[in-house]
Amino acid sequence: MRRTRQKKKGALTEVREFQTETSGLFFKIGKLLRSGSSEYQRIEVFENPDWGNVLFLDGLVQTTERDEFFYHEMLAHPALITHPNPESVLIIGGGDGGVLREVLRYPVKRAVLVEIDPEVTKAAGDHFPWLKTSLEDLRSELVIQDGRDFVEITMEKFDVVIIDSSEPIGPSTPLHGEEFYSRLKTRLNPGGIIMAQVASPFFHLDQIEKKHAFLKDLFFHARFFLGTVPTYPGGSWCYIYLSDSTDPLDVKREPAEGLKVFNNEHYRAAFALPNYVKDKLGLS
Amino acid sequence: MRRTRQKKKGALTEVREFQTETSGLFFKIGKLLRSGSSEYQRIEVFENPDWGNVLFLDGLVQTTERDEFFYHEMLAHPALITHPNPESVLIIGGGDGGVLREVLRYPVKRAVLVEIDPEVTKAAGDHFPWLKTSLEDLRSELVIQDGRDFVEITMEKFDVVIIDSSEPIGPSTPLHGEEFYSRLKTRLNPGGIIMAQVASPFFHLDQIEKKHAFLKDLFFHARFFLGTVPTYPGGSWCYIYLSDSTDPLDVKREPAEGLKVFNNEHYRAAFALPNYVKDKLGLS
Repeated sequence: MRRTRQKKKGALTEVREFQTETSGLFFKIGKLLRSGSSEYQRIEVFENPDWGNVLFLDGLVQTTERDEFFYHEMLAHPALITHPNPESVLIIGGGDGGVLREVLRYPVKRAVLVEIDPEVTKAAGDHFPWLKTSLEDLRSELVIQDGRDFVEITMEKFDVVIIDSSEPIGPSTPLHGEEFYSRLKTRLNPGGIIMAQVASPFFHLDQIEKKHAFLKDLFFHARFFLGTVPTYPGGSWCYIYLSDSTDPLDVKREPAEGLKVFNNEHYRAAFALPNYVKDKLGLS
Repeated sequence: MRRTRQKKKGALTEVREFQTETSGLFFKIGKLLRSGSSEYQRIEVFENPDWGNVLFLDGLVQTTERDEFFYHEMLAHPALITHPNPESVLIIGGGDGGVLREVLRYPVKRAVLVEIDPEVTKAAGDHFPWLKTSLEDLRSELVIQDGRDFVEITMEKFDVVIIDSSEPIGPSTPLHGEEFYSRLKTRLNPGGIIMAQVASPFFHLDQIEKKHAFLKDLFFHARFFLGTVPTYPGGSWCYIYLSDSTDPLDVKREPAEGLKVFNNEHYRAAFALPNYVKDKLGLS
C-alpha cells in the first residue's frame, strides 16, 4: 500500500498512506529518523512539524506523537474501569508502548507486553519517550515473541488482555482469526476481559462484520464501540470489548487522572453506533 | 491553502487539502468536472473513483458523494426532532443542497435556502443529484443573497435556522461572529432553534472556544456536540445547538426514516465530549 514521492534522488520529502486506491493522507517529512525493513515489515519513523514523531508500519500510520492518545486511551481504559479487580494484564502487539503506558496508570501488579518485532520496540524506544519509562516500571515485562506462540505456550492466566495489533496484513494476520480468540479465551481468569482494535467503521466494515459474526458466539458480551483517531483512515476507529461475565457498560470506577480523551460518559456514549454500522451488524 | 500537483502542463491529476501546514488529504482526480473562480471563491468539482463527485471551495473539501451524509444528517436532524412543531426552516449557506434534502424529510411547511454564490448552486445542481430534486419540492425556496443581508432585511421569523457555512475565511466570515448570531436570534419564533457547524475539535479548538464564549451568554442552551465526517480534517466535526427554550436533549420524536448515521441514541451520545474539549470550554 505504501507509496512515497521523491523530490530528488535519495531525498524522501513526503510519506503517504493510501486509505483507498485513490485517496489518503500525506505527511511532509521534516527529518527522516529511520527507514528500512525488519524480518517482519517495513518500518519508517520520521519527524513532521505538526505531528511530532510518526511511526509507519508497512505504509500505514501506526502512531504519531500528537494524536496517539486517542487510540491508546480508548483501547486500554475500558477494561481497567470495568473489571472488578484488574491485577494482571497481557498486551499483544503494541510495541510502541502506548497501551502499556496507559495500563500502568492503574495499580495493576503485572503487565506483560508481547511484541513480535524487536525492531519496532527499538524504533519506539528511540523515538517515543514513553516506552522506556514504561518498561522501567518494575511491574512491566517485555517479551519478544509471536503473540500466537506466547498464548499457545503460556500457562499463565490474565485478568485483562489487550490486542494492539496492526492490520490483518503482514505479521498480525494470525491475531485476527477465530482460532486465536478461542485459544486466548482459555488464558482469562474469571471475570476476564479481552479488548482489541478492529478496523475503520467506514472503510473496513466488512472486517468488522466478519469479526462480529464469530465473536458474538464466542463471548457473552461482544460489544463494538467507536472513537476518533485523527490520523487513522476516516478519523474514526472501531474497538471491541469481549467478556463472558464482565459487562462493558457496568463502570466500576473513575478512570486514571490526566487523560486527554477518556472519561466515563464519553466511553459509554461510544457504544451508541450510527445506523450504517448497526445495520451491517444486524443490531438495528 | 490550496495546492495542486500537475503531472504535465494543464493536466490536473490530484487535489489536496492541507489540514495543517505539512499534512492533509489527497484525492486523485478521475475526471475534472469544473475548475474556476466565482465572484466569491475558487470552486472545483471532480470525480474520484472512491468518493464520487467531490466539491472543493477555496481548497477545502466541502462535499463528497460518498460521505456527505455524515455531516448533513448531524447538522439538520437535531432541530427537527427536538422542536415542538417545526414548520418553517431557514438554511444559510448550504448551497450544495444536502441540508435542504434532510429538512424536507419532515413535514415542514416552508424551507428557505439562502446561498450567496450562484456558482455553487450551479455546480451542485450539475454534479450532485439531490439539489434539483429538493428545489423542485414546492415547500422549497432558493434565494441567492448574502445570508447576512437576508437576515438584516427579512421580516419573516423561523422555527429553525441552520447555518451551513464554509470556514471563516472568504465569503462566510461574517456568518461566524457575535453580531450575526444576535441579529439572527431576533428572527426566531418562540421555541426556535439555531444549528451551526463550528470547526474541527482537534485542529480548530480555539475557534470553538471563541464561539462558546459569546454563545453561552447569548442563548440559554448553547451545547456543542461532535460527529464523524471522514473527509473533514481529523475525521471529526463540531456542531452547536442554540435555543432559549428548547432543550437539545429533550428528543420529541423519531428521526425521519432511511438515515445512514443519525439515530436518537447516537445523537444524544454526541454530547458526551472528550476531556480535551471539555477542558478547553471550561466544562470539566
